[in-house]
Formats: sequence, structure tokens, C-alpha cells
Amino acid sequence: MTDSDLRDRLVSGERRALAQAITLVESTRADHRERSRRLIADLYTKASSAVRIGLTGTPGVGKSTFIENFGLMLAEDDLKIAVLAVDPSSARTGGSILGDKTRMEKLSRHPSAFIRPSPSKAALGGVARRTREAIILCEAAGYDVILVETVGVGQSETMVSDMTDLFMLLVAPAGGDELQGVKRGIMEIADLVVVNKADGDLLLPARRTAADYAGALRLLRKRPHDPECAPSTLITSALENEGLLEVWRKLREINRWRQNHGFHETNRAKQAVHWMHFELQEGLKYSFAEHPAVAASISQIEIRVANREMVPEAAADMLLKVFRKE
Amino acid sequence: MTDSDLRDRLVSGERRALAQAITLVESTRADHRERSRRLIADLYTKASSAVRIGLTGTPGVGKSTFIENFGLMLAEDDLKIAVLAVDPSSARTGGSILGDKTRMEKLSRHPSAFIRPSPSKAALGGVARRTREAIILCEAAGYDVILVETVGVGQSETMVSDMTDLFMLLVAPAGGDELQGVKRGIMEIADLVVVNKADGDLLLPARRTAADYAGALRLLRKRPHDPECAPSTLITSALENEGLLEVWRKLREINRWRQNHGFHETNRAKQAVHWMHFELQEGLKYSFAEHPAVAASISQIEIRVANREMVPEAAADMLLKVFRKE
Repeated sequence: MTDSDLRDRLVSGERRALAQAITLVESTRADHRERSRRLIADLYTKASSAVRIGLTGTPGVGKSTFIENFGLMLAEDDLKIAVLAVDPSSARTGGSILGDKTRMEKLSRHPSAFIRPSPSKAALGGVARRTREAIILCEAAGYDVILVETVGVGQSETMVSDMTDLFMLLVAPAGGDELQGVKRGIMEIADLVVVNKADGDLLLPARRTAADYAGALRLLRKRPHDPECAPSTLITSALENEGLLEVWRKLREINRWRQNHGFHETNRAKQAVHWMHFELQEGLKYSFAEHPAVAASISQIEIRVANREMVPEAAADMLLKVFRKE
Repeated sequence: MTDSDLRDRLVSGERRALAQAITLVESTRADHRERSRRLIADLYTKASSAVRIGLTGTPGVGKSTFIENFGLMLAEDDLKIAVLAVDPSSARTGGSILGDKTRMEKLSRHPSAFIRPSPSKAALGGVARRTREAIILCEAAGYDVILVETVGVGQSETMVSDMTDLFMLLVAPAGGDELQGVKRGIMEIADLVVVNKADGDLLLPARRTAADYAGALRLLRKRPHDPECAPSTLITSALENEGLLEVWRKLREINRWRQNHGFHETNRAKQAVHWMHFELQEGLKYSFAEHPAVAASISQIEIRVANREMVPEAAADMLLKVFRKE
């Protein structure tokens, strides 16, 4: 299949073509990179009204059930939903223990849904590029909602919020003290905190947790691009399909407010510039590592640094001089 | 004062000279950078048997009291102790609310102690370089224990563990469930978990928390450079001066084991190479930003990217070509 066939079939909404295109952008082979660069450039300016939603939550909060039932609800409402998983920790271990399609069995079989697991064996930088490009591809394929899911570790949340319009934090009902454990950084990027598992004995604790978060969010935030309704806190029971519609309504409400006030566009523009700088940094690292004179001397210099025969900064200066004098 | 005067007075142990030298390495002025580079190169290979200890803990665990009384104990034992604070969040707000010397009043007045607050208005990269260089300076000034304290946010722990021999996590007594809130990454780098505030009503909860951590650490770890005694869990009441000697003994025990088994040297060598790569990256970014042709065109290109007239990756490619064709 030629690349223009691939593009046409992708744009016509063929799921298999979308999957193949994502495989292409995940590849690090030079010729694949060249092809995916062209493909992305081709599709990049295609207008899309898709909403990009980031979602995070620590293991055990019921993320898979939430995404499955949230996604099914949207799909039943004739919306096309794509789920992209981002798990930098699986990069280290070489794959997630449970495949995403097993985790979300019903959703993965729905004709309006597309689920893509995290690429394995990729560095965080690689995952970022792949996910940004996969979002473009899903939008070109006509998906209305792009859900980018990440596990609650390290820098992946910031990365995901740098490529989405809205960011959602899923938490479990808990004692008030545990709020301290939530990273401040996540509270700063979350547009919506959802307390899941609000059923049975956990209903009351869930309400209390939601109130605690609401209080904390009020203290922490008040940003120009926050409408009156955000950041907000809701409770759900994904398992019993409770509260999911309210979550969707709230997300749309915030999104619409930002669109009407120009913040949506400003944010996308900022993200594009951020993406450019990210690619610049990756590209710089790459040209440095591939520079013949650098490649020829770096191991020797590393050994001298390791043996304390050279000061690290002086060694770096020397290599930079070698690099610039090409 | 000439730089060689400064160096001589620093090496003779003059506290004011040390403070001045750290101010010099904190400066980003080009001539200051040149001077501090020379100063560090001059002092870098000076052998020192100092032990470098990283310490983190979320606000409220009694970190200041711990450092104050731990430091006083060492100082009374004729050891010279230096405390370097690393707080990237203060970089954003432009300074910590409470000065470090107010936090540790007695220790800061002790003739064998040296306390240096986090530099304000510096990026994480700047803080990393400054702290690495400040460690070299403190060792050259004859300090036996270098304590690098950081607040429990984001990447600062990894950064600090990249420049210390031992890493200590301070936690408060808590319910077993809260263990989940502790970032896995920190558990992976901690050589010692100290449950502080183990006094009065909190003594029993502290013991339980210590047992919980001990269990979690056993599950998570078993690394070649972990002696049988590490990672370990201890309880302290810094306020009542309880358990601090045990902490010091345990740290020395782990350190001695690693020295005897070669892991201490290997770790220092790895850290030096890591430092070199860090400086390489910073240097690359700098030469890129300062490149005349890049500087002349980057704002225009950013605008086109923001307006979706250019694909971010294509824009980055273009700028990289400009940079390489100098």
C-alpha cells in the first residue's frame, strides 16, 4: 500500500489504516520517520473539532472501567472515541502486564472506538512524539474525542497535559489526610477531579473526598483560562455507570467556555510552539551524538571523567568545541 | 580579593570564603562562570572523605528540626557539617518563605556548621549545576558531611540522588494506605526511610508506618549495591533527639559496606559522567539559542507554528538545518 493510499484510507475512517499509520509514527527507523513526517505534514492542517482529553489516576482507582464505560457512553451517542495509552514505565519493562484491549474488552470491540496501547521500549521523548502524532492521525480519521490516558508516574502527566485541551484526574475515595499525597503539580493541571468508586460503602467517603478536593482546588487555583465552573470535582461509579454523563457535560462546558473566550486556540498555539521546542531539543541531541568527531572521542573522554582525570564541565566544554568546529 | 586568595581562604576553612565562592558559582554572568569553572577545576581533584547525603520529605514531617538536631549531634562530635538546600519551587516564587537560617537557628550559629539556602530565581538546571559545584566547594573547605536537602516535589529528588552517596527519605507516621501515595521513584532511590515524629501519641503509629515501609522496601528492592542492611527503616523523634544516632550509624554502615565493595567509587564515577552529559545538554541548548542565524529567525518561525502555518517538527528541522550550516 502506498503512503497516499494509507492516508486516503485513514481519512475515510478505516480503523486498520489508522493502526498502521500509528505503527509508522512509532517506528524510529530513518525511512519510517521520513514517511511519517510527510504523512503528519499532510494531515496536520486538516481542521478538526475533536476534543483532546488527558486522564490520569494511580493504579487501583478503576481507570480501565471508567474509560470503558465512559467510552461506551460516548460511542452509543454516535461519537467516535480514540483511546491512546501513555505509560513510560512500560517502556522500561518492555510492555504493560495487561494489554489495553483486555482491560477494555467491550469498548475495544465497539465499531466507533479505537484503542491503542502504549508503545513499548520507547524513551519518554519517543512516547511524547508518538502520542502527539497519533492524536493528529486520530483526528484526521474523524475521531471526535481523543482520550490520552496515563499512569500516575513522574513527568508523564505534564507531558500529556501539554498535548490535550482538558485534563482529568481520577482518584479513589480516601481520608482527608491523603490529599497531601497528591502531587501539587497534578492539582495545578487538572481541570476536573473525579472521585470514582462512589458506590456502596464508599459513597459517603467519596463525597467527603470530593469536598476535600474541591476545597484544595479552590485554594490552589484561579487562572485566567479557568471558567467559573473549573476546576471542578465530581463523583462517579464507573462500575455502575453513575455520574459519567455529568463528567462529559462538565468537560464540554469547560471546553466551550474556553473556546468562546479564545483560550482554547491560545492553548493549542502554545502547545504547537512547545512541540517545536521539544523536537529541537531531540534533534540537537541527535546531531550531537551522530557527529563523527564527537562519536570518535566521547567514550575516551567519559573514561577520563569517570576516573576523575577530567572535570565533568571541562570535558563537556571540550566536546562542545569539537561539535561546533565541524 | 583575588581568586587564588579566595581559594586559599576557602581551603583553610574560612566560612565567609566558602559563602563567597558559592555565590560565585551561583552567578550566571559569563565572567563569573569562567572564574568559577577555574575554581572548581582547581579544587575538583582534591581528595575528600566527606559523605554526601541526600534528604527529602514532604512539608510537615519535621525536616528542619531533624536537620538541626542531626547536624548539632554531628557538630558536637567534632564533625563539620554543611547543609545545602535545593528547592526548585522557590525558583518559581523567587525565594523561600522562611529563610533556612531561621529554620535552623542553633545549627546555623554553630562554628562547625555551614547552611546555604536554595538559590532563588534559578531554573532546575541551574540549581543542579550550582549544587554539584557547591558540594565540591564544601568538601574542599573540609566539611565531613554534606547534607543536600530537597523538598518532595517533582524531579528534584532524582537530581539530588544523582549527586549524593546516600539518600534518606523522611516521612511522618501515617495509616498503611497512605504508603500508596509515596512515589515509587523515591522508594527506589531511598537507602534509608526515617519515620519522624515518633513521640507521644504518634509512637505506635510511627512503628506501624516503619513496618509498612520496611515491607514495601523489601518487595521493591534488592540491588547489587544494597548491603544486607539496606534499604532500612528507622524511627526518630527529632524534636526529642531520639534515634538520631541510630540514623547516623546506619548511614555510615551502608556507606562503609559500599566503600568496601567498590560500589561507592563506581557510583561517584557514574555521577561524574552523568554530570558531563548534563553539562553537554545545557551547553548544546545554549549554543543553539545564541547562534546568530537561529536567533534571527526563531521568533518568526514560532509565530508561524503558533498559527498552524507550519508543522512543529518541520519547523524544528528547518531551524536545525540553519544551526548546523554555520
